[in-house]
Amino acid sequence: MSHVVSPREAATPIRVALLGAGTVGSQTARLLVEQAQDLSARIGRPMQLVGVSVLDPDEVTVPWIDKSLLTTNSEELVTRADIVIELIGGIEPARTLLLKALNSGASVVTANKALLATHGPELYKAAAENGVDIYFEAAVGGAIPIVRPLRESLVGDRVNRVMGIVNGTTNYILDEMTLKGITFDEALKDAQAKGFAEADPTADIEGFDAAAKAAIIACLSFHTDVRMDDVRTEGISHVTASDIAAAKALNRVIKLLAVVTRTEKGITAGVYPAMIPLNHPLAAVHGSFNAVFVEAEAAGDLMFYGQGAGGAPTASAVVGDVVSEARHLSHGSLGPDIPLYANLPILEGDEDESSFVMRVLVLDAPGVLAKVSQTFANHGISIKAVTQLQLKDKDGYNELWITTHVVSEKSVHETAKDLDNLVPIQSVLSIMRIFED
Amino acid sequence: MSHVVSPREAATPIRVALLGAGTVGSQTARLLVEQAQDLSARIGRPMQLVGVSVLDPDEVTVPWIDKSLLTTNSEELVTRADIVIELIGGIEPARTLLLKALNSGASVVTANKALLATHGPELYKAAAENGVDIYFEAAVGGAIPIVRPLRESLVGDRVNRVMGIVNGTTNYILDEMTLKGITFDEALKDAQAKGFAEADPTADIEGFDAAAKAAIIACLSFHTDVRMDDVRTEGISHVTASDIAAAKALNRVIKLLAVVTRTEKGITAGVYPAMIPLNHPLAAVHGSFNAVFVEAEAAGDLMFYGQGAGGAPTASAVVGDVVSEARHLSHGSLGPDIPLYANLPILEGDEDESSFVMRVLVLDAPGVLAKVSQTFANHGISIKAVTQLQLKDKDGYNELWITTHVVSEKSVHETAKDLDNLVPIQSVLSIMRIFED
Repeated sequence: MSHVVSPREAATPIRVALLGAGTVGSQTARLLVEQAQDLSARIGRPMQLVGVSVLDPDEVTVPWIDKSLLTTNSEELVTRADIVIELIGGIEPARTLLLKALNSGASVVTANKALLATHGPELYKAAAENGVDIYFEAAVGGAIPIVRPLRESLVGDRVNRVMGIVNGTTNYILDEMTLKGITFDEALKDAQAKGFAEADPTADIEGFDAAAKAAIIACLSFHTDVRMDDVRTEGISHVTASDIAAAKALNRVIKLLAVVTRTEKGITAGVYPAMIPLNHPLAAVHGSFNAVFVEAEAAGDLMFYGQGAGGAPTASAVVGDVVSEARHLSHGSLGPDIPLYANLPILEGDEDESSFVMRVLVLDAPGVLAKVSQTFANHGISIKAVTQLQLKDKDGYNELWITTHVVSEKSVHETAKDLDNLVPIQSVLSIMRIFED
Repeated sequence: MSHVVSPREAATPIRVALLGAGTVGSQTARLLVEQAQDLSARIGRPMQLVGVSVLDPDEVTVPWIDKSLLTTNSEELVTRADIVIELIGGIEPARTLLLKALNSGASVVTANKALLATHGPELYKAAAENGVDIYFEAAVGGAIPIVRPLRESLVGDRVNRVMGIVNGTTNYILDEMTLKGITFDEALKDAQAKGFAEADPTADIEGFDAAAKAAIIACLSFHTDVRMDDVRTEGISHVTASDIAAAKALNRVIKLLAVVTRTEKGITAGVYPAMIPLNHPLAAVHGSFNAVFVEAEAAGDLMFYGQGAGGAPTASAVVGDVVSEARHLSHGSLGPDIPLYANLPILEGDEDESSFVMRVLVLDAPGVLAKVSQTFANHGISIKAVTQLQLKDKDGYNELWITTHVVSEKSVHETAKDLDNLVPIQSVLSIMRIFED
């Protein structure tokens, strides 16, 4: 089984091309340069950065990127490298460039979650067909090793559910709302001022970023082709200070979760805010940190925690992938592919089952609770608990918190529609998943 | 780079031998049998269990181990397998059997922390020389993927410190003492009754089990030959209910930690109870769960959490390793070796620097604090905070809690020795590390 490397091969450097020199790209270049000696020792062969493609070479000012390496011709660069690192983001031209790289026999490292969530299986197939590697640890949870454990460590186990806090912006906002009792708008402004949210925060707060990660996690966990379009996606812009207060009263905290589940009928993938128990390990994930909680049949509960974004942490994950691929090249071997052989059925988002909490504003009148209960019963939903609050600021109205047993999201929404047409009901204020202790 | 597998090779099963069929061994056999189809799909070749060696074949009663596979001849079994799984534990005959397996060209999976902590580097070398794999995810933190992230994901980063709760028994005991205010003896009895502690709990409560894991983690983190003898080891049998109460008053909780640190002078490895802030992610690790907290230069803080022991979780980690090695065999490749090239100096245990809390019983008399402070000053230790408690149950005595700035353990112990000789001092009750917010 011994691998034979000729002295000439051992001395030939592995050629690395970098597409993009933004925050993550320039930090990746820094690690490759600063850790060059250590990395060579671990790989068994030197590595050489042979080119960095950017839109405008004049904008690259970091001292560790040699000016002579800069090019605007990505198409050409990907054909003269053994490993191509893609950090430009977006679907095109990233997709075309990576396919070209893979078809030219280069291995690929990417942090591009949007691309993987829409065209991942196409890229995984191209890598397998060309006998090269595609690694993407940085695409989910930044520096947190989560892709590798799912691809390799848990390969002999059966993953039943993965729940992740995979978006730092929304976790920061919800955390601030919880700790300081402020509104969503106030927390968003604060996050923008502190650099935790973009000027246009849509992709984060509407859950699209988390949905891309959910699709990638589902592929890895269930060996099934799951794309971003398959992920039922709900953001946090509608979460109110009253929702946060209700969660607190129920000994829970609201987190935006990406959840993929294997059920007997098939798999579900969703992103939504949910109330989780205070003693759940995910409840202790504060600020912009990320964490991914895995429920596996034999391994039991596992959690992976760390910084989900930022130049240096993401670059650390990228370089870890580069080293793995370089080692494979140095030894003439190959990492695990991403087999999507299971073809489990993907259920519609609203078939996903859970307990829910519905907050309803009702007239303070006798018989209201009976009418509300009957409406739930009409939809076959069994109620687990009801809390009635007398509202001081809204005389004549009460607020009901109705917690259901486990039911489909669909049936809860149909119930809410009927409730909205009932006379003593002012309005359904919110509907949210609530997780058990 | 494409790997070529002939049809005959593809059909030849990979031969797996299992040494030991205790709790973990029988669960490992179960996963290999129950998941056979999935595993073959992921490996690209069938796997076959060719033998299970045990001391007494009559004691193996689980239905999924075919009686015809049982043997008492481990020496012979290891020579007719492609992958040898060692789950017998202890140093010998495990060491001799694994060396024989490696030298016969078999790859090895082991969960044997005691063996790796004393002879790991010898085994890693034998694996590299024979061009085969040695994997041992289950040796640290059971099912938690921690070995693989350190070996592979963080390979492009620089690990500065790893702190782990790596022993479930002691975490359960300290957690019970904290939650219920009971004594160490009461908590130990409870743990034994519930199966969380052995009849002879020495290896756990005196920190030896954690020290073995610390040595393994240090090798992986710092690429330096660190053995169990290099680990300064202190258990929890001396931790009192008063220590727990003091920690609580200082907004901290006591955990038994395995800590390996890279400093400018070299590396330190230690196991000791320490007071950690309540908002530290490790503080939320309850019961018999384990967690490993990694501080890396680029990746920042990472934490890995899960069940550190138990048949099924440990077996999950073992099978993950088996699949990785089987994939390598199927593709004619090899996993990363464990290069111990850095040769960092290993510092003496008591050179390890930290803040400490000393609890001292003193006469309630004027001038005591001045004398105590002077004694610390004599040893160059600067005091950060002092709390004085009037003891209701011990009239005429006070208790002092003295928190130091960061100093060496050695200097704190020398100070304690001098304090014990001072007239107004009754006794030094305890000395413990305290970690910053």
